[in-house]
Amino acid sequence: MGIFVEGATLDGGPAGLRIEHGLIAALGPDAVPEAADERIDGAGTAIVPGLVNGHTHAAMTLFRGYADDLPLMEWLQKHIWPVEARLDDDDVYWGTRLACAEMIRTGTVRFWDMYWRPGAVARAVTDAGVRATIGPPLLDGGDPARIDEVRRAAGEGLAEIEANASPLTAPSLAPHAVYTVSPDSLAWIAAESERLGIPVQIHASETEQEVDDCLAAHGLRPVELLDRVGLLSPRALLAHAVWIDENERELIASSGATVVSNPVANMKLAVGRIFDLGAAREHGLPVGLGTDGAGSNNSLDLFSDVKHFALGQKHLARDPAAGAAPQAMAIARGELAPLLGATPLEVGAPADLLLVRTDRHELGVGALDAGLVYAASGGVVDTTIVAGRVLMRGGVVDGEDEILERARERGRRLGLLG
Amino acid sequence: MGIFVEGATLDGGPAGLRIEHGLIAALGPDAVPEAADERIDGAGTAIVPGLVNGHTHAAMTLFRGYADDLPLMEWLQKHIWPVEARLDDDDVYWGTRLACAEMIRTGTVRFWDMYWRPGAVARAVTDAGVRATIGPPLLDGGDPARIDEVRRAAGEGLAEIEANASPLTAPSLAPHAVYTVSPDSLAWIAAESERLGIPVQIHASETEQEVDDCLAAHGLRPVELLDRVGLLSPRALLAHAVWIDENERELIASSGATVVSNPVANMKLAVGRIFDLGAAREHGLPVGLGTDGAGSNNSLDLFSDVKHFALGQKHLARDPAAGAAPQAMAIARGELAPLLGATPLEVGAPADLLLVRTDRHELGVGALDAGLVYAASGGVVDTTIVAGRVLMRGGVVDGEDEILERARERGRRLGLLG
Repeated sequence: MGIFVEGATLDGGPAGLRIEHGLIAALGPDAVPEAADERIDGAGTAIVPGLVNGHTHAAMTLFRGYADDLPLMEWLQKHIWPVEARLDDDDVYWGTRLACAEMIRTGTVRFWDMYWRPGAVARAVTDAGVRATIGPPLLDGGDPARIDEVRRAAGEGLAEIEANASPLTAPSLAPHAVYTVSPDSLAWIAAESERLGIPVQIHASETEQEVDDCLAAHGLRPVELLDRVGLLSPRALLAHAVWIDENERELIASSGATVVSNPVANMKLAVGRIFDLGAAREHGLPVGLGTDGAGSNNSLDLFSDVKHFALGQKHLARDPAAGAAPQAMAIARGELAPLLGATPLEVGAPADLLLVRTDRHELGVGALDAGLVYAASGGVVDTTIVAGRVLMRGGVVDGEDEILERARERGRRLGLLG
Repeated sequence: MGIFVEGATLDGGPAGLRIEHGLIAALGPDAVPEAADERIDGAGTAIVPGLVNGHTHAAMTLFRGYADDLPLMEWLQKHIWPVEARLDDDDVYWGTRLACAEMIRTGTVRFWDMYWRPGAVARAVTDAGVRATIGPPLLDGGDPARIDEVRRAAGEGLAEIEANASPLTAPSLAPHAVYTVSPDSLAWIAAESERLGIPVQIHASETEQEVDDCLAAHGLRPVELLDRVGLLSPRALLAHAVWIDENERELIASSGATVVSNPVANMKLAVGRIFDLGAAREHGLPVGLGTDGAGSNNSLDLFSDVKHFALGQKHLARDPAAGAAPQAMAIARGELAPLLGATPLEVGAPADLLLVRTDRHELGVGALDAGLVYAASGGVVDTTIVAGRVLMRGGVVDGEDEILERARERGRRLGLLG
C-alpha cells in the first residue's frame, strides 16, 4: 500500500505521484494509483522538491528573540554561551523538535545541524521525520594543548549520534571556527573526517575580524588556513564564506568544498558584506543556502530567506538579473551542491517533496520559481513529505501543540521565558 | 452594540478592548464589555496597531510575476506600460480588491496608492473596508506644452475619487516623477495641492539615472527641483528617496515632507543603494515604509518587508543595532510620519488594529516588536479590524475566493494568465 497524490501539477502540467516504501514509484501524467493506495487530494497544488537548509543550529529556537540587535561576539559571549552552558538533553531535544516543526511547516526536508548534545538532536530529527546531517561542535579555544578535548568531544559526539541514528540521520564533525579551534585540532579533525568518510562543517570567514585575527595569529586567511591543515575537500561545508578573496575562492573550488550562504544572519549581525554568488559560481563553487540558528535570523523559513538571498545578489551586482529566481530556488533546494544531499524529484528517488499551493494569486502570473522566491513565504507549503511519510498537511504539523508546550517548559527552566 | 475583545494582551499584560461606532471605547485591564457586545476571543493574541503601507500601486497584483528580474526602465517601458494602457475600471477594481485582501490578511490597515482609474480604486477600497489615500497618476512626458493633460487628469481623477468617496478614502495628487512630469506641471500640481489642502505623492530619487538625467536636463538634483517648483511641504510624500544627498535631506527636513522607503522594490530592481535611515533621522525626516506594487516586490506583506528594511539598515550602517526592532516597527506602523495618517491605539481613536498571535513560539522569548520584525511574516496576524469593522479573523478574509476568481478573469482578459 502506497500513497497517491492526485490532481496536482508538475512543471505546469497535470501529474500524478505515487509513493511506495518511501520512494517515488510513479510521477507524471501517466502515473496511476493502486487500489490500496491512500489518496491525497493535490488539487490547487504543484509538486516540487523540498528545500535543504545548509546551515543551522536547530535547538536555538529556544533562544529566538533573546538579545537581538547586538554584534556577533557580544551576542555569543555575553548572552548565548552562558545559557548554552546550562543546556541538558531535554532542552536540546525539544528545541530541535520545535525547529523541525517550523522547518517541516515551511518546506525544509533536510538540514545541516551543528549543536551541543548531538544525540538529542538525532533523536529529535528521527522523531520529527525530517532528514539531518548532525555534527558535534568541536572547540579547543585555539589552544593546541587542548586537542584531547576535541578528540573526546568528537568521539563522544559521534557515539551519541550513532546510538540515536536512523535512516534519517547522518553524522559529521563540526569544528566551530578558525578562531576557536587550533590548527593542530583542525588537522586532526580533517584526518578523522577522511578516515571515517564523513562530512566536516565549519563557520568560515563570517566577519572581517575573523580574517584579521587569523592573519595576525597564523599569517594566513581563514580559508588558506583550512587548506593548510587539509580540511578542504568535497566533504567540507564552509558556512558563510562572506569575507573570502579570489585566492580563497580558488582554493575552495579546487578542493571541491561547498559554501553555504546565510544571508539573513549575515545582515542581522551586520557583518558588512554580502556573500558574492556571482564570483562563487564563476569559480564553479558548489553553493547552498542556510538560515543559521533561530537566535540570529530569527526564522527558519527558507522561503523567506531565499528572497533575502536573491535580493542581496541583485543589490551587490547592481543587476536585477542577478540571483534570478530559477538559480535562487535551485540553491534553496540544494541542487547546486551535491554534498548537501538533495534528492531529485524522479522515479526511484526518496520521496522528499512538497505540495505548494498554486491556487493563490500571490504566486503571480509568471513562472512558479519566481512566485516562490519573490511572492511566497513558507505559508505557501500545503504538504511536506519526507522519505515517503506525510509530515504536514494543510499547514498543520502533527503534534505541534505539544512540541510548543514542551519547548516553552524548557525555556522557563532556562530562565528565558517568564 | 459594540465589539469586545477578551483574553488578549496589551504591552505584555492582560487587557480588554471595547469598540463602538468604529472607535476604541475602552482599552486596558479595566475595560469591560456591555451586555449586547459581540464577543471576540483574543486568547493567545496581542492587541497592536495596524500597519501603514506608505507606497504601493495596489492593482498591480494583476502583474505579479509578470516579467521579473529586469531593470526598472525596461520593465516599465517594454512590459508594464503596454499592458497598463489596456486596463479598464473592472481590471483596476478587482486588482485593487485582491491587493486589499492580501494587505488585510497581512495586517495593513491603511495604504497610499498611486494608480490609474482612481475611482475604481476608491470603490475597491471602500468595498474592502480598508483605508487608503488615492492619487491619480499625472504625467506630461516632461513636455510643458502638455500641461493641460495634467490639469485634465488631475481634475478627472479627483472627480472620480470624489464620486466614489467614503469615510475610508482620501484624495491626493500623484505626479509620477521628475523624469515624466515637467517643472511647469509640477509647479501647477504643487499649487493645486496647496489650494485643495490635499497630499501630493511622487516617486523621487529612486535611481542614479534619475539623478543624472535631472541634473542634465535641469541643472538640479530631483529633490532640488521639487523644492524649486514648490512641491516640498508637509503634504508631500516622496517615495524611495534613495539617491539623495545631504543638501536634499536638509531641503526635505526644512519643508516637513515625508519620505517612504521601499526596501524590497529597491533591491529587486537593483537601484544600487539602500535608503539611509540613520541620515534621514539625523535630519529629523518623517519616514514611512512601503511595499511598492506587487509587480516589483512581489508581495504586499509589510511584516515581511519590515525585516528587509531592518536588515538593510544594519548592513548599510555596519551596525547590528541599526534599524532596531522598535524603530522599524514604529516606521511600519506609520508612527514616525504624521502625514501617513496612522491612528493611535488609544481610547477615542478609530479602531484600526490587529490581533497578532503571541502563542506561537516563532515570535521568540524577547520583546514582541523584535518577534514581529525578525521572526514573523504576515501569517502572524489573526484578526484585522479597520474603523471598528472586523475584516479578517483566523487568517480568512471575507469573500477572498470570489475576489481571487474575479482577479483571475481580469488577468485572462489582459492575456497575462493562461
